[in-house]
Amino acid sequence: MNNHKYAVGVDFGTESGRALLVNVNTGEEVATAVHPYANGVIDERLPDSGVRLEPDWALQDPNDYLEVFKQAIPAVLREAGVDPADVIGIGIDFTACTILPTKADGTPLCFLPEFRSKPHAWVKLWKHHAAQPEANKLNEIARRLGYDFLDRYGGKISSEWFVPKVMQIVDEDPAIYAAADRILEAADWVVWQLTGQETRNLTTAGYKGLWSKRTGFPPSDFFKALDPRLENLVDDKMSRQIFELGQRAGGLTEQAAAWTGLRPGTAVAVANVDAHVAVPAATVVEPARMVIIMGTSNCHMIMSENERVVPGMCGYVQDGIIPGMVGYEAGQSCVGDHFAWFVENCVPGAYDREAAARGVSIHELLESKAAQLAPGASGLVALDWWNGNRSVLVDVDLTGMIVGMTLATKPEELYRALIEATAYGTRMIIETFDAHDVPVDEIVATGGLPDRNKLLMQIYADVTGRPIRVSGAKQGGAFGSAMHGAVAAGTAAGGYDNIVDAARAMARLREDHYTPNPAAVAVYNQLYAEYVKLHDYFGRGENDVMKRLKALKASVLLQGDSHA
Amino acid sequence: MNNHKYAVGVDFGTESGRALLVNVNTGEEVATAVHPYANGVIDERLPDSGVRLEPDWALQDPNDYLEVFKQAIPAVLREAGVDPADVIGIGIDFTACTILPTKADGTPLCFLPEFRSKPHAWVKLWKHHAAQPEANKLNEIARRLGYDFLDRYGGKISSEWFVPKVMQIVDEDPAIYAAADRILEAADWVVWQLTGQETRNLTTAGYKGLWSKRTGFPPSDFFKALDPRLENLVDDKMSRQIFELGQRAGGLTEQAAAWTGLRPGTAVAVANVDAHVAVPAATVVEPARMVIIMGTSNCHMIMSENERVVPGMCGYVQDGIIPGMVGYEAGQSCVGDHFAWFVENCVPGAYDREAAARGVSIHELLESKAAQLAPGASGLVALDWWNGNRSVLVDVDLTGMIVGMTLATKPEELYRALIEATAYGTRMIIETFDAHDVPVDEIVATGGLPDRNKLLMQIYADVTGRPIRVSGAKQGGAFGSAMHGAVAAGTAAGGYDNIVDAARAMARLREDHYTPNPAAVAVYNQLYAEYVKLHDYFGRGENDVMKRLKALKASVLLQGDSHA
Repeated sequence: MNNHKYAVGVDFGTESGRALLVNVNTGEEVATAVHPYANGVIDERLPDSGVRLEPDWALQDPNDYLEVFKQAIPAVLREAGVDPADVIGIGIDFTACTILPTKADGTPLCFLPEFRSKPHAWVKLWKHHAAQPEANKLNEIARRLGYDFLDRYGGKISSEWFVPKVMQIVDEDPAIYAAADRILEAADWVVWQLTGQETRNLTTAGYKGLWSKRTGFPPSDFFKALDPRLENLVDDKMSRQIFELGQRAGGLTEQAAAWTGLRPGTAVAVANVDAHVAVPAATVVEPARMVIIMGTSNCHMIMSENERVVPGMCGYVQDGIIPGMVGYEAGQSCVGDHFAWFVENCVPGAYDREAAARGVSIHELLESKAAQLAPGASGLVALDWWNGNRSVLVDVDLTGMIVGMTLATKPEELYRALIEATAYGTRMIIETFDAHDVPVDEIVATGGLPDRNKLLMQIYADVTGRPIRVSGAKQGGAFGSAMHGAVAAGTAAGGYDNIVDAARAMARLREDHYTPNPAAVAVYNQLYAEYVKLHDYFGRGENDVMKRLKALKASVLLQGDSHA
Repeated sequence: MNNHKYAVGVDFGTESGRALLVNVNTGEEVATAVHPYANGVIDERLPDSGVRLEPDWALQDPNDYLEVFKQAIPAVLREAGVDPADVIGIGIDFTACTILPTKADGTPLCFLPEFRSKPHAWVKLWKHHAAQPEANKLNEIARRLGYDFLDRYGGKISSEWFVPKVMQIVDEDPAIYAAADRILEAADWVVWQLTGQETRNLTTAGYKGLWSKRTGFPPSDFFKALDPRLENLVDDKMSRQIFELGQRAGGLTEQAAAWTGLRPGTAVAVANVDAHVAVPAATVVEPARMVIIMGTSNCHMIMSENERVVPGMCGYVQDGIIPGMVGYEAGQSCVGDHFAWFVENCVPGAYDREAAARGVSIHELLESKAAQLAPGASGLVALDWWNGNRSVLVDVDLTGMIVGMTLATKPEELYRALIEATAYGTRMIIETFDAHDVPVDEIVATGGLPDRNKLLMQIYADVTGRPIRVSGAKQGGAFGSAMHGAVAAGTAAGGYDNIVDAARAMARLREDHYTPNPAAVAVYNQLYAEYVKLHDYFGRGENDVMKRLKALKASVLLQGDSHA
């Protein structure tokens, strides 16, 4: 017997939850299991009642989260054959900001028969985008009344965040607002279900809840200005007690122990966010090493000892990623989605047949053809805004652009240009951080893309001029959550005293890495200069054609509907 | 017996020649036959010798033209069963500017064994683009020395034209230049082969040969400034006698009669150009009715009683289309080619399968999907410069651009945006003519596209805000040539005295036509304003990104070659 200890990380995604059992001593990912949410993303009709939802709504069923505990944790224990007594902690991470209203005992309103057919009683998923009018109102009022907290969030907060979502409840179904004793992040709600104690985590409070360590929440006067009914939102339905990452939220209740097969009292860490736990999981616990979580979108996480206002980032929070440092977040809203769009809409049948004949996927075929092209050889430059621009322009109404096509332009050239465009977008983010005294010396990539697309990784190294390492964690979110579970357990139980120690012992990088090629860097410097010129022309108001086209499209489609 | 008379039109294209037998009294297209050129476009190696050609070369074999007379004319006579005695005239039209060097008796130098392996002895096809350095030199010298003939050609002449092509011969193979007693348009050479007499037609002289009725050719001093060896080019190897369109160049020789099966002495019209004969073939013999020949590219022909300098047109020539009027020409270099590029490179396999299942072509499938979209509903605007811009920017180094894509953008939206882009380009040409006192009230379309793509025609009507009629001639070039053959024969022989009378009697429009839809016009006015803004930004020097990308691409590919 080796006396090794284990921790469980549970990563709650958009469509499913994943449990991962990690060896706390070695960092080995021992077993993993995924449980899909039975009700998935609810965006057309409510379960049971069949009540129809408006466009831009996206809800979830909290019972689906409990099922992940009941199904996926027992599954990994079975697969690993590990003694539950050796599992010292659990950590969870969640999408943010995904929120729900509950009774004082934590019962979701949507579990109660009287509210089950009320859309606002359900969980609002992060990508519920129906609170845009409320977000606009919040931004306008905050600016007008001179509140400076917007500076921490790149100047503007999103409809995805906590307060606009709550405002929408008050606006549209005040009875639900009145019936809600608590409104909280689903991240904190699942920890409550495990521990029997409500705790509020620092990460979602800081990045999505307008809270900061120094100033707390905005004052009641601000909430009152939004809506008199919201004046006491924080004290009535939220909490001013915010818990540090890695803290022990509590021990597993008897009931939760029965659900999971773990021992009652097992340490449960304060909740966290998927992107944020991926940082220590990628070995990064210090400034100047940027972690990019590369998947359908890119999320950029970087730390500094200093608090700086960097234009166009998503937000910064003291201790928001690793205690003791300011954690900054930025993002690109269209990366893997971009390539998927291209493959679905723009790749000719002849390429499908060639891929089939070679026995490779269409992505692999495109990658192999695109890899044969030299930087600059396509003559193309694109703006990566097919899904708007998150950083540094913070503008959802921007759209895509590509320039340089000739009659000789091939699909693989367009594909490569889209990859390059996302790399230019990342360079723009990096250079904006750099220019505002938040240096970026190295990149550590994690997420789904680094494994699948070596060409993309090399292009990112060449475009940014920075070396790129790849996280060794196969499941960055769940792995980082397990690390936080080990920290919540503490050294006495065989875990760690803090996340830095946990990262040193458990996290690792892969051997393979990507180094900028000087010849490619020189060409990409020229192409990036073109990108910047077009970025500013289309993105900073010189020619708002993208917005005008979008507005015209909306009015044309509206007329079409009214005629139909 | 009805005593009807007939004329033959022969249209020499890029890959083949077509003969058409037309009833002079009714305009009926009685029979047609196509003969493909055995040596086609010679752009890799010379026939027989196998001598390798440089990039951008495009040659032809003059014997292929004679074969069209020998094969296609007898074929139409056979098919129609018409008595050769009732065929009163022949007209021909040709690509311009396609030129060749010959001996004094008309023998092409490439027919002579001593020159057969010399590339410069062959026919230089219109799209031979290797004389760009010579064209640049000509433009530079003409500007520097203050010659104003460039004003007639939009300010710049092209490498496709007569003098640059001759300059290239002098530069690269002076022995060929010395051995050439005559250098002439292939159009005039084939008429010479039919009649035994050399004539030079007004159209190519005017549009491609720097000649004008008022001032003749540029003076010898100009040619001397280009190269001292060219001082006497016009008098030594060309001719100052220029023949009007519709004039009788001569009668068919015994030999040509034997080739064709027609009677010796049959009237042969002075040569003409494909696009120009298509104008009367489309019923247009007056000002303000623009003929657009729509195919791989668009050619815009419009007449006025006044001589005006219109920026960016290809050229204007007094009597150049219809005697008595100034004929203006403009063009777009990428129309049908554009859609073909899209279909080959950007349409997903799923659409191939859907087209196959519906039993339609992929173009038809795209058209039917694109036709369901309202103007403005795609949110897209493109610049139609995949093959540079001919009018009004006259810049081959411009490239394509498209803006407005989102993750919901579908292939049919991109396809429709490309169609719309070519329509905006046509509107830009029309508005430039209009603004310079060359009004355009109506459009008559001819060529391959109007038959095949009704959506495109409606979009052109909606974008330009002008009604569009369609020429009734199935073969606009050959039909117009046959009309000129009937004019060369004259009323005495059963033909006509002039092309206006011929057009009234023989040419007609189709019943179906396209009328601007006011609602669509209103939306397209907004989209066109966006096009103009982007057109000027990318095309008039505000951001020369297209040229820089093209230059970078060329340098990257050159380095790749030198490393290989």
